[in-house]
Amino acid sequence: MAPGLTVCFGEIMLRLTPPGCLRIGQARSYEAWFAGSEGNVAVALAAWGVPSSMVTKVPDNPVGEALVAELRRSKVDVTHVHKGGPRLGVFFVEKAASQRAPRVVYDRAHSSLAEASAAEFDWEAILANACWLHLSGITPALSPAMEETVAQACRAAKLRQATISMDINYRRALWTPERAGRSLTGLLPMVDVTITNREHASLLFGIGGSDGGPAETVRGLQARFGCRTVAITTRQGESASQTQFGALLHQGDEYVSSRTHCIEVIDQVGSGDAFTAGIIYGLQNELSPQETVEYAAAAACLKHTIPGDFCECSAAEVRMLALGEGSGRLVR
Amino acid sequence: MAPGLTVCFGEIMLRLTPPGCLRIGQARSYEAWFAGSEGNVAVALAAWGVPSSMVTKVPDNPVGEALVAELRRSKVDVTHVHKGGPRLGVFFVEKAASQRAPRVVYDRAHSSLAEASAAEFDWEAILANACWLHLSGITPALSPAMEETVAQACRAAKLRQATISMDINYRRALWTPERAGRSLTGLLPMVDVTITNREHASLLFGIGGSDGGPAETVRGLQARFGCRTVAITTRQGESASQTQFGALLHQGDEYVSSRTHCIEVIDQVGSGDAFTAGIIYGLQNELSPQETVEYAAAAACLKHTIPGDFCECSAAEVRMLALGEGSGRLVR
Amino acid sequence: MAPGLTVCFGEIMLRLTPPGCLRIGQARSYEAWFAGSEGNVAVALAAWGVPSSMVTKVPDNPVGEALVAELRRSKVDVTHVHKGGPRLGVFFVEKAASQRAPRVVYDRAHSSLAEASAAEFDWEAILANACWLHLSGITPALSPAMEETVAQACRAAKLRQATISMDINYRRALWTPERAGRSLTGLLPMVDVTITNREHASLLFGIGGSDGGPAETVRGLQARFGCRTVAITTRQGESASQTQFGALLHQGDEYVSSRTHCIEVIDQVGSGDAFTAGIIYGLQNELSPQETVEYAAAAACLKHTIPGDFCECSAAEVRMLALGEGSGRLVR
Amino acid sequence: MAPGLTVCFGEIMLRLTPPGCLRIGQARSYEAWFAGSEGNVAVALAAWGVPSSMVTKVPDNPVGEALVAELRRSKVDVTHVHKGGPRLGVFFVEKAASQRAPRVVYDRAHSSLAEASAAEFDWEAILANACWLHLSGITPALSPAMEETVAQACRAAKLRQATISMDINYRRALWTPERAGRSLTGLLPMVDVTITNREHASLLFGIGGSDGGPAETVRGLQARFGCRTVAITTRQGESASQTQFGALLHQGDEYVSSRTHCIEVIDQVGSGDAFTAGIIYGLQNELSPQETVEYAAAAACLKHTIPGDFCECSAAEVRMLALGEGSGRLVR
Amino acid sequence: MAPGLTVCFGEIMLRLTPPGCLRIGQARSYEAWFAGSEGNVAVALAAWGVPSSMVTKVPDNPVGEALVAELRRSKVDVTHVHKGGPRLGVFFVEKAASQRAPRVVYDRAHSSLAEASAAEFDWEAILANACWLHLSGITPALSPAMEETVAQACRAAKLRQATISMDINYRRALWTPERAGRSLTGLLPMVDVTITNREHASLLFGIGGSDGGPAETVRGLQARFGCRTVAITTRQGESASQTQFGALLHQGDEYVSSRTHCIEVIDQVGSGDAFTAGIIYGLQNELSPQETVEYAAAAACLKHTIPGDFCECSAAEVRMLALGEGSGRLVR
Amino acid sequence: MAPGLTVCFGEIMLRLTPPGCLRIGQARSYEAWFAGSEGNVAVALAAWGVPSSMVTKVPDNPVGEALVAELRRSKVDVTHVHKGGPRLGVFFVEKAASQRAPRVVYDRAHSSLAEASAAEFDWEAILANACWLHLSGITPALSPAMEETVAQACRAAKLRQATISMDINYRRALWTPERAGRSLTGLLPMVDVTITNREHASLLFGIGGSDGGPAETVRGLQARFGCRTVAITTRQGESASQTQFGALLHQGDEYVSSRTHCIEVIDQVGSGDAFTAGIIYGLQNELSPQETVEYAAAAACLKHTIPGDFCECSAAEVRMLALGEGSGRLVR
Repeated sequence: MAPGLTVCFGEIMLRLTPPGCLRIGQARSYEAWFAGSEGNVAVALAAWGVPSSMVTKVPDNPVGEALVAELRRSKVDVTHVHKGGPRLGVFFVEKAASQRAPRVVYDRAHSSLAEASAAEFDWEAILANACWLHLSGITPALSPAMEETVAQACRAAKLRQATISMDINYRRALWTPERAGRSLTGLLPMVDVTITNREHASLLFGIGGSDGGPAETVRGLQARFGCRTVAITTRQGESASQTQFGALLHQGDEYVSSRTHCIEVIDQVGSGDAFTAGIIYGLQNELSPQETVEYAAAAACLKHTIPGDFCECSAAEVRMLALGEGSGRLVR
Repeated sequence: MAPGLTVCFGEIMLRLTPPGCLRIGQARSYEAWFAGSEGNVAVALAAWGVPSSMVTKVPDNPVGEALVAELRRSKVDVTHVHKGGPRLGVFFVEKAASQRAPRVVYDRAHSSLAEASAAEFDWEAILANACWLHLSGITPALSPAMEETVAQACRAAKLRQATISMDINYRRALWTPERAGRSLTGLLPMVDVTITNREHASLLFGIGGSDGGPAETVRGLQARFGCRTVAITTRQGESASQTQFGALLHQGDEYVSSRTHCIEVIDQVGSGDAFTAGIIYGLQNELSPQETVEYAAAAACLKHTIPGDFCECSAAEVRMLALGEGSGRLVR
Repeated sequence: MAPGLTVCFGEIMLRLTPPGCLRIGQARSYEAWFAGSEGNVAVALAAWGVPSSMVTKVPDNPVGEALVAELRRSKVDVTHVHKGGPRLGVFFVEKAASQRAPRVVYDRAHSSLAEASAAEFDWEAILANACWLHLSGITPALSPAMEETVAQACRAAKLRQATISMDINYRRALWTPERAGRSLTGLLPMVDVTITNREHASLLFGIGGSDGGPAETVRGLQARFGCRTVAITTRQGESASQTQFGALLHQGDEYVSSRTHCIEVIDQVGSGDAFTAGIIYGLQNELSPQETVEYAAAAACLKHTIPGDFCECSAAEVRMLALGEGSGRLVR
Repeated sequence: MAPGLTVCFGEIMLRLTPPGCLRIGQARSYEAWFAGSEGNVAVALAAWGVPSSMVTKVPDNPVGEALVAELRRSKVDVTHVHKGGPRLGVFFVEKAASQRAPRVVYDRAHSSLAEASAAEFDWEAILANACWLHLSGITPALSPAMEETVAQACRAAKLRQATISMDINYRRALWTPERAGRSLTGLLPMVDVTITNREHASLLFGIGGSDGGPAETVRGLQARFGCRTVAITTRQGESASQTQFGALLHQGDEYVSSRTHCIEVIDQVGSGDAFTAGIIYGLQNELSPQETVEYAAAAACLKHTIPGDFCECSAAEVRMLALGEGSGRLVR
Repeated sequence: MAPGLTVCFGEIMLRLTPPGCLRIGQARSYEAWFAGSEGNVAVALAAWGVPSSMVTKVPDNPVGEALVAELRRSKVDVTHVHKGGPRLGVFFVEKAASQRAPRVVYDRAHSSLAEASAAEFDWEAILANACWLHLSGITPALSPAMEETVAQACRAAKLRQATISMDINYRRALWTPERAGRSLTGLLPMVDVTITNREHASLLFGIGGSDGGPAETVRGLQARFGCRTVAITTRQGESASQTQFGALLHQGDEYVSSRTHCIEVIDQVGSGDAFTAGIIYGLQNELSPQETVEYAAAAACLKHTIPGDFCECSAAEVRMLALGEGSGRLVR
Repeated sequence: MAPGLTVCFGEIMLRLTPPGCLRIGQARSYEAWFAGSEGNVAVALAAWGVPSSMVTKVPDNPVGEALVAELRRSKVDVTHVHKGGPRLGVFFVEKAASQRAPRVVYDRAHSSLAEASAAEFDWEAILANACWLHLSGITPALSPAMEETVAQACRAAKLRQATISMDINYRRALWTPERAGRSLTGLLPMVDVTITNREHASLLFGIGGSDGGPAETVRGLQARFGCRTVAITTRQGESASQTQFGALLHQGDEYVSSRTHCIEVIDQVGSGDAFTAGIIYGLQNELSPQETVEYAAAAACLKHTIPGDFCECSAAEVRMLALGEGSGRLVR
């Protein structure tokens, strides 16, 4: 079965990053990227041949237009990108290096999406041709209206028997673990595919310990919320320049782990979204659980080597790495 | 008498400009400048030996710190730059060229200053050593609290017998001409030195026509508000790349005009503020009215040739141009 | 009647330009743009709300993909952009300055389009929903196969009663005036809307003198080829940094001239294509001949101020300049 | 007790670095930084809340002014930065990579400070409010006048009971080990806090071997010169891209070692100065010896990750790394 | 004996590389380098004091002129660089990172050299003062004429008793292993010094396995073709950012191995050519086999740290690394 | 007669220029160019087919090597570029704009050439194959040794009957008009071709007024010093962005004037040297006086449009402009 239309709903922002390894206090210019968890997923899926459509709201000005153009460039359908509202959220990101952590300064309040109402989104129409709805735990944190909108989207998807995936993606700048836990607890029973990590599962739901094994986290999520599929990422490493990335997937009865990638990091932001997109890709293309988790981990690995938030690589490149072939080699 | 401390109160924002002549839709990076009408005045004055102190509020994050550092670099006192509040206002500016007008996209709502309360500013302390208070018509447009704060600042300055200058600087993105006219009409009777242009005087106060002679505007402002000193700028030219800039000053009994500068424009933003700073410089240094208006016009002219909002040139450079010497010539 | 789908057929190349005013011999890097006469038209039309579709062939490699993505970004339909063949044409362009002329070094031979066969293009399918076909005199110069393909496209358009426009656009690097004249003479009787200048009309067809009046050229073209509509551009100026641009349009019984724009040039390349797109826009939107020629001339004028080949401005911006309002002025 | 004013005396130069990893022979542009051992210390201290004042001399031209502005930006007091003399020293630095060592080309002779006289510096006035004087072994190498000036500064500091710290910082481009050893031997008995490494201690004073243990070096320096506090840095690693950095501090009766940081290097220059500033910070803030050496080593570690010579990070960032928390992790 | 004139024959192209780690699809500009296997050798030799002369053909346009100027800059004799023909070959190279392999897109067909005839090269004149001819296995793949030209060059060199070196350098984009094996089998009996790796020796000649020991490959080549000297490079590593590089040289009766360099890679392209140049340098300067292989491996190692294709470092720098001294250390 | 070897003697420096129109106080990086009056002449001549050789001294370090490589790139013979001495002179140049004059900060004292001795230059050997010696009035100002060296060079040239040209090029940063006048008065009787302007002739020699006609200056120079050929440049214009450039040449009995070029300036520095090179080119190629002055003025005009100090254009481009053809037009 060919992959079907995947609808991604969430906020996209303007990401401003000082060139090279400069700190914000040293910057006289910023690289400009568009970035947002669900948009990153939409872009990766479209690049890999899974049709995707973005649902969001951006201001009706040249910055908003540039964002929409960038989605079009990336083959994402923009029919349901609403125009209007006050502003596009902005965030500043310093690239990290060695012991210096990445630093993020958010300026996202009062964005066009955060100030939108639930009534602006007609989910029946939006999901008309969709077989999949992707969400993240960021959107319900934006405003009560968005919390309600996410719930409406889930209910509409359920009615249509579309698969629902959610990346927990807890953002402590937006809400407390308690509020997040309570809100997401209401949504997760509708979710088919959950992606998170041990730390967030422990912090929001008290499931597993952040020190416990990942399998404990997976089982806990499944027991509590009944998710059909759970994927967990693990990262290790003392340095911002190097990381070890791996993942665990529970799908049906199988628990499978990906290989661990030792990565020299160019740009870490968006790698979790590349992983999430990889899981959706695998499920939609009916890869085996092992193939799926390898594909998703390889996508996350490659994203670390690409500037910006988007996972600008082809399915062929991801598959080659997932198969363990030709890593990093020049062939000419 | 040596020039005394000049206190400037207003908002400073992050200005993002695409490199070269790129449009926002083409930009993959932005030059970053800090910019704001009253801050521009403070920077120019400090560069010219008039001690200046900035009063504003910026968020307590690396972007706010970078702004404060930039003011320190420019010799502006930052004792009264408050830290806190939600965000720094942002605006995007496309450089203009020929028939293509400059384009400005504002994202300034909910800034730290706009959300500050009047009670945060202790004007008695702020003005303790000041002989001059500079304001613009932008600040009262930010919020009712800021409208009240400007009024309090004026009253405190009057009590201390400090001179008050105000650049009308109408911003239609912030309020209607009616609201602006009403608000400023309450403030201008306290103002000693008013800077504006014919268009704004006509639009806000119905004084002069935007087609009438500048002298009419000057007399009208003086008659209505009793300002001791009025300065009017005039710009002409069909192209964004070239402009003719001149000015008229009424001071005491004298009406004097500057020469007209035919300018090839590098960066127009901030030229009005350079003019305003030039008027304050002339008055504080007790130049003659003719010298003052020539100095101010020359400062505005030079600002057009300097990237960014700040008038990064010395008093000696301004004076040389004001005297008509060595315009544009290389001497070595 | 709403504007209908316009199909543009021709070659798009990679344009490499040294940064700033550097010469090729000084360049250590190049700005990269995608550029081609008919593609530029397609992009401008799409930006202005006239649906457009590009027909071309690009290599199946990352450079070809980047081109297609750029068209998508610009809202151009890419359904009929074929992938395959040996290479994308490249050309190097030095920006001109003052007395220094722009310098163009072509490296376009053996491109994927030049080596394509006529059989690869199924014009019945391509034009299925189209009401307009746009061509230029460059494409038949690429190869005999392309000469035949253009003729087939014209015949298919005629059958469908689609309007055909052609920009003569003689390129002496590709063929001689004699060959060009002979080839285009075979095509022009099928063309409804012809765009050219006096120099090319004289050189290729012996119509008008390059010194004669533009009306003579227009009448000559109409008499010889029976074009319904003819548009002629005129440029004047000794310096590459400044040009005077105007145009003449003959439509039905009317001969109308645009105002002359005195332009300070940022990037001249693509301005003729912006003009051509403006004529098509006017005709499709049923503007009057005077409105059409003013719109087209204003579009060409604005293009001179925008880096790259694409006319990245909105119909609202073009209309404002065409109406003579607010040229180059900052309003905020 | 709050940290008191620290006076730093020495030369600041213009550092020119090719962009990226280019070599000087490939460079068509240079990144420009201001840099100097004692100035780097002053900047770090000011950033961490220890008031600092720079004593130096720069030419009275725009390059000198830019340097002073940069110090002001960094919160360093510039009251005692003299203007005049012939020139600012320049040095060219190639960034290193892997087996390719950093390359430094000095052009520092005849600088304004090197040609200044001892009489220009009124140490009584300069040290009026100071509790600490920081020097390096570079300044006495600049000229006999500077050698005398350093001695005068030390004597004035002793009179005022200000603490004196000295970073030995031997520069073989300026003088021989013999001359350096002789000169510094005259100064060190006045010095309270000495910072150096095994190699320099061995080369200049014959103390310890460059292969011996660091404790031997510390004891030797203390025995010979009676320094109250001695700090020693150690570096290891075959590659310019990666280094292991650690330190040993002897303070009172305690010998303490920092953890070893394995660093991926962005810009090594100035890391020793960040260490020195860290030692002064710890002593002025009455941290324990262990806390002090960890803070100083963490500061040096972070400096390796920041472009330029200045240690542009906050005390909070240094402390977090010194405590071993969150190294290189993104929290959001 | 002082090193004598080395003639290098082959194609030089324009290499376009996106800045930083951007992918081609993200690039809005390209760094421009001139690059080609034999030209890289010529540049390295000239930098190290071995006079070299380049034989090639470039188009007679500003891009071709820039290439020739770059060779002149690098001290390479350009007397035999012919001007004419259609174009300069172009290739696009994405810098690799971690698991992301470098990506190369060739656009080299129909270049001036590929379309040149054998008759254009008068080898008697070209080799008049030469003692060495260097070739690669790329040139015979360009066209039958170039295959013939390489054979003529070899025969002329043999007549003059000049040494012939050849870097096998198989390019699968140009020909099949079978065609390459057949063609080079005709040439190698004339070659004195052969440089290759195990993979190519196995693929083209069935000599050694790509998994076998390098000594097997060396012996096989010597047995089959009678080469006096054979050098083999070995690379290892899973990541594009780090590589282990070593080499084996068989010269006379000796088999010697270099140390292995663990390299953090800045730019890998051209490192094999730096190795080849190092072998020629060692032989011409009569270094011992061990010194030669260490010099060549050190040159290759340093090249990995230098942007562009040319090995821009001095013989002194290479020798210092070859001796194992001061790797990556800053001395000042 | 084919043009013969022209020997140019003088200092070449590193020119550092902030990018775009930034001021030195705003610069975080500098564009780097090599620049010097006589070197600029040598480069232009070599580009136009007049063999040239540079005589100068540069430090034996990577910066000096880069300078020599740049001369090689430009086809200038570097046999007589000595290596050694302390440093390369540096100067900072701000690009001018409109009323803002270019600003130059010199840091050229103690350069390798300024500290060289006359004995280092063996003029008999240097001039062995030369037919022309070119000098400027800058070199004798560098040091007494250089003043003597210039005199020795002139005497050697006279002995060899080589033509001597001198560009007066008064630099007030180096010496007073009185000292310059006295020194050059001793040299000019040996000079065959003198290039200057009215201002310098008046200031140094009291010849003509800076307001008088250029013919007066020419006659005065000829009468006083007996120069065979005198060329005078004239510049006009209030703005640094636009200038009118023309010239007068007296050669034999003829007084001829060039057309006046109205130039939009990209980079003014080096335009006088392009003019001087043009005069030498015309005389060596036996152009008529009118052709010579038109060529020289056209070369100066084109130099204004090219970044850097070198006149990077071909003789064909200069001739086309000198003939008044195709100024600034794109032909393709």
